[in-house]
Amino acid sequence: MDSDLARAPGPRPAPVRWEPVAICPDTGARAGIMHTPHGDVETPAFMPVGTQATVKAMTPEELETIGAQIILGNTYHLHLRPGADLVAEAGGLHAFAHWNHPILTDSGGFQVFSLCERNQISDDGVTFRSHIDGSRHFLSPEGATDIQNKLGADIMMAFDQCAPYPSDHAYAAEAADRTYRWVQRCLGAHRRPHDQALFGIVQGSVFPDLRRRGAEQISGLDLPGVAIGGLSVGEPKPQMYDILDLTVPLLPRDRPHYLMGVGSPDCLVEGIQRGIDLFDCVLQTRMARNGTAITRRGKVVVRNAAYARDFTPLDPDCQCYTCTNYTRAYIHHLIKADEILGLRLVTWHNLAFTVDLMGQARRAIIGGRYASWKREFLSGYEVFGGKEGPPAWEERRRRSGGTGREA
Amino acid sequence: MDSDLARAPGPRPAPVRWEPVAICPDTGARAGIMHTPHGDVETPAFMPVGTQATVKAMTPEELETIGAQIILGNTYHLHLRPGADLVAEAGGLHAFAHWNHPILTDSGGFQVFSLCERNQISDDGVTFRSHIDGSRHFLSPEGATDIQNKLGADIMMAFDQCAPYPSDHAYAAEAADRTYRWVQRCLGAHRRPHDQALFGIVQGSVFPDLRRRGAEQISGLDLPGVAIGGLSVGEPKPQMYDILDLTVPLLPRDRPHYLMGVGSPDCLVEGIQRGIDLFDCVLQTRMARNGTAITRRGKVVVRNAAYARDFTPLDPDCQCYTCTNYTRAYIHHLIKADEILGLRLVTWHNLAFTVDLMGQARRAIIGGRYASWKREFLSGYEVFGGKEGPPAWEERRRRSGGTGREA
Repeated sequence: MDSDLARAPGPRPAPVRWEPVAICPDTGARAGIMHTPHGDVETPAFMPVGTQATVKAMTPEELETIGAQIILGNTYHLHLRPGADLVAEAGGLHAFAHWNHPILTDSGGFQVFSLCERNQISDDGVTFRSHIDGSRHFLSPEGATDIQNKLGADIMMAFDQCAPYPSDHAYAAEAADRTYRWVQRCLGAHRRPHDQALFGIVQGSVFPDLRRRGAEQISGLDLPGVAIGGLSVGEPKPQMYDILDLTVPLLPRDRPHYLMGVGSPDCLVEGIQRGIDLFDCVLQTRMARNGTAITRRGKVVVRNAAYARDFTPLDPDCQCYTCTNYTRAYIHHLIKADEILGLRLVTWHNLAFTVDLMGQARRAIIGGRYASWKREFLSGYEVFGGKEGPPAWEERRRRSGGTGREA
Repeated sequence: MDSDLARAPGPRPAPVRWEPVAICPDTGARAGIMHTPHGDVETPAFMPVGTQATVKAMTPEELETIGAQIILGNTYHLHLRPGADLVAEAGGLHAFAHWNHPILTDSGGFQVFSLCERNQISDDGVTFRSHIDGSRHFLSPEGATDIQNKLGADIMMAFDQCAPYPSDHAYAAEAADRTYRWVQRCLGAHRRPHDQALFGIVQGSVFPDLRRRGAEQISGLDLPGVAIGGLSVGEPKPQMYDILDLTVPLLPRDRPHYLMGVGSPDCLVEGIQRGIDLFDCVLQTRMARNGTAITRRGKVVVRNAAYARDFTPLDPDCQCYTCTNYTRAYIHHLIKADEILGLRLVTWHNLAFTVDLMGQARRAIIGGRYASWKREFLSGYEVFGGKEGPPAWEERRRRSGGTGREA
């Protein structure tokens, strides 16, 4: 095999490599191609979230149809159910879920801190209780790495400690430092560096000094990719953008940059402008299940009675399957009648819209006109769900039945 | 247009015509083609049930893929939500639901007698309370016909009174006689005889004399199709077969014969043998939502723990999308995790299996070997859910949250 031959003369090539295609001359926006063992991903890219080995309500073929090139799986959820050993027995997550394209798995760190009550954190790892049955579990950098090696995703994330918002400086510093110690243990435990790439995560909450130090530390590890975690957890959006402004320039320029858990259209275009290549978010699928479409103009709560006799598409500017074939009135009816097709159609649209938006952004970067494209997009788009009045972490968890991040 | 030209010289042709293709030499099984304004239906045919203007969990394209040629809509449900006027405004049920193939709508009679508490029956019609919000409604032969004219299905059903099982002879006779009076009022109220066919229904419970009289009465009306209602409502299967044995031969031989609400594989092949051309049932979609697959060998309760590590398809003999691409272990996981894809995949299989079974039966009839094909099929198939110990009507309603017939 090629990869075996390549090992002989020098260091083995990383299983995931990011190749630049174009850099916007006016902003930091980057277009590229990320090569992975299961195929290429054109960046910037949005990763639909497949928490439990399925992107909610979608088949793999439908994801292909909308142009999704990579999906995300959640280590925490898959560890608890059906278990990594069963997934390995099935041939890994790709075979289990019938998705033969790139997959990224997170580390479970975010979930054990946000989904689980009464977790106990030490340098060893985290003891937590399952949100499914209350059973007690322990997750460590080594354990999270082992699980991810069994799942077999193209990209694995280092086990990290995500500080809630707001946190004080001392707590955020401790979490960021622990995250750095843990990524090194993940590297030591990683059994499949030849075909799975381990990405590190920069934490540090909203504190510039912590973010700077984290970015420099992670950059020293020569990882195939780096992520920014601990944002979009309740802080105001301008503060998130400030943190990106100072953090991204400190990351390796030749590696993919992944902004975790971010996916509203305005945040996507702002993140791209600041040099982010990869995003994931449950917003698209979760809003769909609540009967809300994300459109070129902002959100459309098609569940509302106002749409009962609206015989236009969810988004007149959209060419997706849903918008080509169905009216708001029909989808409104389906949602009111609790019909599965209703949330299927809105999910389809929300994901197709978002993936298409990333494609538009990429073409704008390649065309050297990202700044003007972004201005044009935002001028016609009404931002929703702004975090200018930031709800507290706990309040967000209560309202969403989770963290706002994981489906 | 052809149909206008055709009107001039003589009576206008019926909008729905059934054309025989082959009759089995050993049984009464018939293969044919039913011509409708929205295309042809090869019979015998199974009609997936789209109660609320959607076959639960399926898109129209998926129904096309599995080979479904006609679907059923429920007048009762669509009348209550979203309302026939809204559907008419959308261009009719075909346009509203993005299904440009044949549709049959029932009359609502079955539902007002089975889903609704405290209904009041008179010769005028039925006063009932909505199962959605308890609001009071009145449905008559004229009203049901008007609603169905607005929905615009290719085939409409006459408003009938379905006697529960068990009923005494006097009650069953009253219901059967009323059903006959009502079909004549439906005919009088029918505003679209040129492009919608009105089928009549034979009632009579399990009483041979009532079934005989009903069949003879309905045959005298020269309707484009006839249905047998009031079976599969709790009576033992052998009793249902006996009623078919005596009723079907009394129906017009050149019209399609529709056995309402019947759809388990063994009942389908027995019904076909007795000269039935059309079937509908919610069994396939409802069992799917309960995590149970219908296979060549009988039912597979994939929700059960026994399938957690079973890496074979739902039905190894099936070529459908689900069985080609997914394992029982994966589907089991999806169902346990309450993932929509789980019930989508089982629904797909159950409908594909059933539609395929009808195709096999049709080919066997055309090949002159229906009796042997049926014997062979039943020898490898374990019957489930038999009604040999018939649950009472009320008991069935309580258990299913409905009638066992409507999704």
